[in-house]
Amino acid sequence: MKLSHIEHIGIAVKSLETAIPFYEEMLGLKCYSVEEVADQKVKTAFFKIGQTKIELLESTDPEGAIGKFIENKGEGIHHIAFSTEDGVQKSLDELAEKGIRLIDKAPRNGAEGLRIGFLHPKSTLGVLTELCENPNENK
Amino acid sequence: MKLSHIEHIGIAVKSLETAIPFYEEMLGLKCYSVEEVADQKVKTAFFKIGQTKIELLESTDPEGAIGKFIENKGEGIHHIAFSTEDGVQKSLDELAEKGIRLIDKAPRNGAEGLRIGFLHPKSTLGVLTELCENPNENK
Repeated sequence: MKLSHIEHIGIAVKSLETAIPFYEEMLGLKCYSVEEVADQKVKTAFFKIGQTKIELLESTDPEGAIGKFIENKGEGIHHIAFSTEDGVQKSLDELAEKGIRLIDKAPRNGAEGLRIGFLHPKSTLGVLTELCENPNENK
Repeated sequence: MKLSHIEHIGIAVKSLETAIPFYEEMLGLKCYSVEEVADQKVKTAFFKIGQTKIELLESTDPEGAIGKFIENKGEGIHHIAFSTEDGVQKSLDELAEKGIRLIDKAPRNGAEGLRIGFLHPKSTLGVLTELCENPNENK
């Protein structure tokens, strides 16, 4: 598996309405997109810094992954997403062969038109890890 | 404050001896440096991916910040470090003026010869945030 860069870092927040101006003011970054991802039961806000994005995640459903995360652990860093040059399916297959436990056995749609797949944190030393590919980019 | 990129992501692990080969095998990245930072009571291991480094942190003292983090929360993502183009002191001063609570009022030495300063997660929506500058780089 060949990873090129960290595509984004996901951060769970209670409220985008509070968090967006806070991040803009604190870090001097500009939020360029807000998008709901119904599949993941979240509303997301994106900031770009160098090669990487910061993705703020607000829960839209207390039973969703971010709702439960905030209930259990409070606001904070939720996951790291790597951009894979081999495509998500091939990378997931390769990791499964190595014994890594997968949340997604096949890629699904994420924010910003990306194809994504999650690895299970119980299998990755506690780090919820996402793989991404942009289907609109040449590989 | 002008941030250029994410300098590194700090990940708390129980054992570098276990975690380094795991990261090398899982992510296909090569550990290029292992360094003890006595001041922070950690041993660190670095991997480079694009503009960003992954810094694995093993506690050398149960009373240190990483020792306590692992005891309370287990292994996982610990902090995000941004590279600031304005220098750490100026950036810390600017954030203090904006009401952000600081862990470090003045820069101190971090791994890899960087000058660093931490903001308090209670003041940054739960994200332990570090600012870095490389004193050997031209600003």
